[in-house]
Amino acid sequence: MERPHNFSAGPCILPLEVFEKASQSVIDLDGSGLSILEISHRSSAFVEVMEKARSLALEHLNLQNKGYKALFMQGGASMQFLTTAYNLLEKKAGYLDTGTWASNAIKEAKNFGEIEIVASSKESNYNFIPKNYSIPQGLDYMHCTSNNTIYGTQMKSFPDSDETPLICDMSSDIFSRDLDFSRFGLIYAGAQKNMGPAGATLVVVKEDILGKVSRTIPSMMDYKLFIKKESMFNTPPVFSVYVSMLTLEWLSRNGGVSAQEKKNRAKSELIYSEIDRNSLFEGFTGKEDRSMMNATFTLNDESLASRFDELWKSANINGLHGHRSVGGYRASMYNALPLESVEVLVDVMKHFEKTL
Amino acid sequence: MERPHNFSAGPCILPLEVFEKASQSVIDLDGSGLSILEISHRSSAFVEVMEKARSLALEHLNLQNKGYKALFMQGGASMQFLTTAYNLLEKKAGYLDTGTWASNAIKEAKNFGEIEIVASSKESNYNFIPKNYSIPQGLDYMHCTSNNTIYGTQMKSFPDSDETPLICDMSSDIFSRDLDFSRFGLIYAGAQKNMGPAGATLVVVKEDILGKVSRTIPSMMDYKLFIKKESMFNTPPVFSVYVSMLTLEWLSRNGGVSAQEKKNRAKSELIYSEIDRNSLFEGFTGKEDRSMMNATFTLNDESLASRFDELWKSANINGLHGHRSVGGYRASMYNALPLESVEVLVDVMKHFEKTL
Repeated sequence: MERPHNFSAGPCILPLEVFEKASQSVIDLDGSGLSILEISHRSSAFVEVMEKARSLALEHLNLQNKGYKALFMQGGASMQFLTTAYNLLEKKAGYLDTGTWASNAIKEAKNFGEIEIVASSKESNYNFIPKNYSIPQGLDYMHCTSNNTIYGTQMKSFPDSDETPLICDMSSDIFSRDLDFSRFGLIYAGAQKNMGPAGATLVVVKEDILGKVSRTIPSMMDYKLFIKKESMFNTPPVFSVYVSMLTLEWLSRNGGVSAQEKKNRAKSELIYSEIDRNSLFEGFTGKEDRSMMNATFTLNDESLASRFDELWKSANINGLHGHRSVGGYRASMYNALPLESVEVLVDVMKHFEKTL
Repeated sequence: MERPHNFSAGPCILPLEVFEKASQSVIDLDGSGLSILEISHRSSAFVEVMEKARSLALEHLNLQNKGYKALFMQGGASMQFLTTAYNLLEKKAGYLDTGTWASNAIKEAKNFGEIEIVASSKESNYNFIPKNYSIPQGLDYMHCTSNNTIYGTQMKSFPDSDETPLICDMSSDIFSRDLDFSRFGLIYAGAQKNMGPAGATLVVVKEDILGKVSRTIPSMMDYKLFIKKESMFNTPPVFSVYVSMLTLEWLSRNGGVSAQEKKNRAKSELIYSEIDRNSLFEGFTGKEDRSMMNATFTLNDESLASRFDELWKSANINGLHGHRSVGGYRASMYNALPLESVEVLVDVMKHFEKTL
């Protein structure tokens, strides 16, 4: 059977060669006769995997030898909403409110200190990224969300914050584009978009921003402890880290983040051109804030939905429905999604127009 | 290549048919053309997996329709050390100190209230399970660890606690023996022994013990929220839950917990008989507290270690070294380890004796 064109918003498509190698390693890891699922996390085989994954993460962000550490933790971005506050919030932090995830991050942090919402697009159902704000003085950190999967918006520039550490949730666009990552004090990302299977969470932190809060930090939330224990304070999510390593290796073999950015740009330009050209559809977000990862759009005439749905489903497309809070459609085009899948979708949209 | 006899203490052996099915699903889940790693956690395919895994967990513990809920969370037992205290510790809790993990649980809970160590075997390097203690009045809960992987001790009976909810870390012996699980208010277990790959954590909780603390509980730690959201407050560790479901199905096909207990008893009797018979070896723990899961033993003459190590390694045995805090050897015999593997180990021990 031909593999579906998988536009799922996450967990999402990973490279086929990663699936193939991971599948083999579930039976037999590199000829050891043991499954990747049954080896000790203290075995040399897995210690190498963990080190490789951490080192590749730093390499792809161009953050080696710049005072940063890469950690693997558990619990996804939702756990990081809490963990960042535990480790970094002493008195007051600033948050950019650009969507559901940003808003959830704010909710969790409020239990640890004062939160200032520096800018928000909540009033317009988050269909744009706020601009023209400045970071107030005296914040412990400033938190933002680089890509908003539900709404399909993406930050194209980041606030200047020379004094204030900039914390960024990059769950849905990490490793998808080249940025000056050294502008960030801490970056976190759930694995399940561009990195690997759900269950692992990448944290990249500049060590010198840590150790400044007065509270006791629980072991499982303590970045300094995870640095010291090389992400093995307890049993890590072995398989998710392993597949993340495979995906980061695939990224290396394919030109790294900048080559990937070109591909992502081509995919997103193709779909947005069609959304703008095709009179049946309308984009959900402001054009200047459109995400390269998640293109959100609606039918101008909702009554045509079932006919459109039938068409894309019969073209072997998966996962195109929009999030319930926005409705319509969402084409998620993470790193591993081939251009051909977007071409098939665009063909369906063109064909749909002709049938009417 | 023949598969090694895998005595790894965890992550550990799982049934070969589980590895085979999981491997296939990493390429193609049930003929969908999609990998288990790339499907949405909101897809009907995965929602069914999650429901099946939760329902099988309750079924194997004989806790259906008794006011209990089964949850899947992340972070392993170490995160539960914290989560249990967040949810349940208002003033004072009692802990049984039977080893490293119990001691870590105590450390994390101390930030939330007063901890009374009701009994401890710390003074004798945890080589027995304390007995003849009684649970003090007025505790929010009493916490114990049913099996201590590092030392190879296992609780054979549990304290009477009609008034006080009994909380048990069963990470390393859940689904290995039949108990009256309705005596517990909350049971938790990292997946990576008898259930599945590292990355998922099972929590089985009696609903009526929740909702009694006054603090705000962070979302990712809130049992009530995870019950309400059916373990999908955020993206769960999809693959680990899926493989846990496969293992729980395998357990059902093989007679469930009571049939498994018989097998585990046979395996452990075989190894302990040899430890007691063979003058070269000595068991680490008191006989009455010996674990069915982890048999710990040492060589009476440490200078023979390299010769013994060579023998078992050449017999294709993996993971027999003891934990660094105890030394010697540890034969972990989790559910999926076949009796034949223990026979091979016992043969090696006998053969070793003859060569001297």
